[in-house]
Amino acid sequence: MIKKLYLVSPGPVPIPEDALVEAAKPIIHHRTEIFSDIFMEVAEGMKYIFQTKQDIFIFASSGTGAMEAAVANLLSPGDEVITINGGKFGERWGEIARAWGLNVHEIVLEWGEPYTGDQLYEELKAHPNVKAVFATLSETSSGSVYDIKSFAEATAKTDAVLVVDAISGLGATPCPMDEWGVDVIVAGSQKALMIPPGLAYIALSEKAWNLVENSKFPKYYFDLKAYKKSLGKKTTPYTPAISLIIQQKKTIDFIKKMGLETIFEHHRILADATRAAVQALGLELLSKIPGNIATAVKVPEGVDGIALVKTVQKKYGVYIAGGQSSYKGKIFRIAHLGYMSAFDIITAISAVEMALAEQGYKFDMGAGVKAAMEIFRREWK
Amino acid sequence: MIKKLYLVSPGPVPIPEDALVEAAKPIIHHRTEIFSDIFMEVAEGMKYIFQTKQDIFIFASSGTGAMEAAVANLLSPGDEVITINGGKFGERWGEIARAWGLNVHEIVLEWGEPYTGDQLYEELKAHPNVKAVFATLSETSSGSVYDIKSFAEATAKTDAVLVVDAISGLGATPCPMDEWGVDVIVAGSQKALMIPPGLAYIALSEKAWNLVENSKFPKYYFDLKAYKKSLGKKTTPYTPAISLIIQQKKTIDFIKKMGLETIFEHHRILADATRAAVQALGLELLSKIPGNIATAVKVPEGVDGIALVKTVQKKYGVYIAGGQSSYKGKIFRIAHLGYMSAFDIITAISAVEMALAEQGYKFDMGAGVKAAMEIFRREWK
Repeated sequence: MIKKLYLVSPGPVPIPEDALVEAAKPIIHHRTEIFSDIFMEVAEGMKYIFQTKQDIFIFASSGTGAMEAAVANLLSPGDEVITINGGKFGERWGEIARAWGLNVHEIVLEWGEPYTGDQLYEELKAHPNVKAVFATLSETSSGSVYDIKSFAEATAKTDAVLVVDAISGLGATPCPMDEWGVDVIVAGSQKALMIPPGLAYIALSEKAWNLVENSKFPKYYFDLKAYKKSLGKKTTPYTPAISLIIQQKKTIDFIKKMGLETIFEHHRILADATRAAVQALGLELLSKIPGNIATAVKVPEGVDGIALVKTVQKKYGVYIAGGQSSYKGKIFRIAHLGYMSAFDIITAISAVEMALAEQGYKFDMGAGVKAAMEIFRREWK
Repeated sequence: MIKKLYLVSPGPVPIPEDALVEAAKPIIHHRTEIFSDIFMEVAEGMKYIFQTKQDIFIFASSGTGAMEAAVANLLSPGDEVITINGGKFGERWGEIARAWGLNVHEIVLEWGEPYTGDQLYEELKAHPNVKAVFATLSETSSGSVYDIKSFAEATAKTDAVLVVDAISGLGATPCPMDEWGVDVIVAGSQKALMIPPGLAYIALSEKAWNLVENSKFPKYYFDLKAYKKSLGKKTTPYTPAISLIIQQKKTIDFIKKMGLETIFEHHRILADATRAAVQALGLELLSKIPGNIATAVKVPEGVDGIALVKTVQKKYGVYIAGGQSSYKGKIFRIAHLGYMSAFDIITAISAVEMALAEQGYKFDMGAGVKAAMEIFRREWK
């Protein structure tokens, strides 16, 4: 069989054709007016996606680089912080914070369990010296989206800043920075921003900038003051990832043209269809707070989860994701993120159905696709 | 919704990524050794797809150009010919032949009705002066594949040559030129050859070359003698479509690597899945001799066929084809041709199902996709 490859994993995601072809064009120099103009269109355009009036700083790095930048720029040796660990990426905040020698109060949650702003506020009262809370908007490891708005309401009552890893969520699910009062948002290019990996973004509130002014951690590449100075000159302090910036310009145009609300709604419909499909197959979601970025599905009794994902990926060429850490083999994940259409979901569900059948799982073949189609038919505009 | 465009029409077809990117590379000059080498790899490689030892001539033209080349090079004013018209493309043979003032015996068939070598032999006996028979391997307008082998057996018993429009069929369904004794095969680049439109191919048996030697029709651009002379110099007499030739080299590599038999089997599986899917929806095939290139499906009672195709194309972005000529609105066509995967078929079927439901057609939603999945699951290797 001719096997095409399909990406339905939570990053990287499929890239719009207009952005793809940009990478095939000859590279231009970055210390030029033509590039500076494009660079500033990205820096300004990203404010629309962050929903903020604050400056957006652009790193040539993966999202993790911007997470570390937040830690290195906001804090000083021995500072107390809270990290909310509800999965692989919440756990990462704790790893970074400990790597920098911070005094970490880590809130460890069952994957997919909710956590509220009220709970966070109690934690903050118990640790009044906490300077920053590190949270995750979309925890792709469990397919969850946390209530960032309530977290921001909690931190707003204290001196602590709220730092949100919105890497996989920004642009796919609401997280209006200024309206909700989020102090720091970190994002990455290969998720809802719809280009390849390699760019990371960060924006800071004034409350967060006050911490930056007093930070005593050593830093150079991720020093936000250097980026702030360079932004005034329409550039970055170090070589920007030129082709990625140009591609990003294209997808910002795409996102602006569709409108953020429409794109959120698109992700919601794809997610609803995915959830309806797997439930129609008799499967259960892992998360009690499922988001519209990726759906984590429990592998049913008697099915080998590792073999299932392998069949879907290797035999059918459909790159769903398996489970991470202790959930390896216990869940699989279908993303509905970025430049995906309804038929990417139909493709993913049909590949999963075929693989489930091969594993001897008893179900009504076609029921998943049917459930997805019912939603698309009703909601497609 | 984010709408991606899907091509499931009988040409143009999706193009393998390795061939697509070639068109983004800087153009090279055609009177160079580097291009001549690529050109000859295409001319030689195409022999594998034609299954012939004869030379293959390459035109910068659409397939229709090569059809006209066959007429202009083989015949002389007033010659008698037979054309077999079982659809839009069989009809075209008659149009070209009449445009050149030939004496045409046109066999007009109901779309999708079979025609046999025995019938053709009777026709040839009735018209003993016929110099050429013009037939179609894959008649995409009706989703039919004709029994070319039996036609060749008939013409072999006479002085007439068999000229086959294999534009949409070559490389997707068997038509071994030398083994079957087909005298002339005409092909086009945008079908099973998996690149954009713009190249046409023609190969001739010795029996056909004898006619060429005696042809008195005027010709210049399509003069095969000029192409034969140029082929000895590893080039074409007029500017070749350079980027298309380079893309063709890539897909010949792809086809050779998979193997022609495997590719035929791939098309057969996709076609079986498509036929099973539409039949599971309670729909009927138009053709009594359905091929593995495109499936023509009758629009059921009470469904507006024009609106159906429009919904599938415009709303869902899935470019199935409608009916042509008098079948407009009465059939729709799903191709399973070229660089398509099983999920292109799943996509097409699910879009058709959603559009049928919108038209109020009563059926078991999901049944089509289920039937296709059952076949893919069983046959996918």
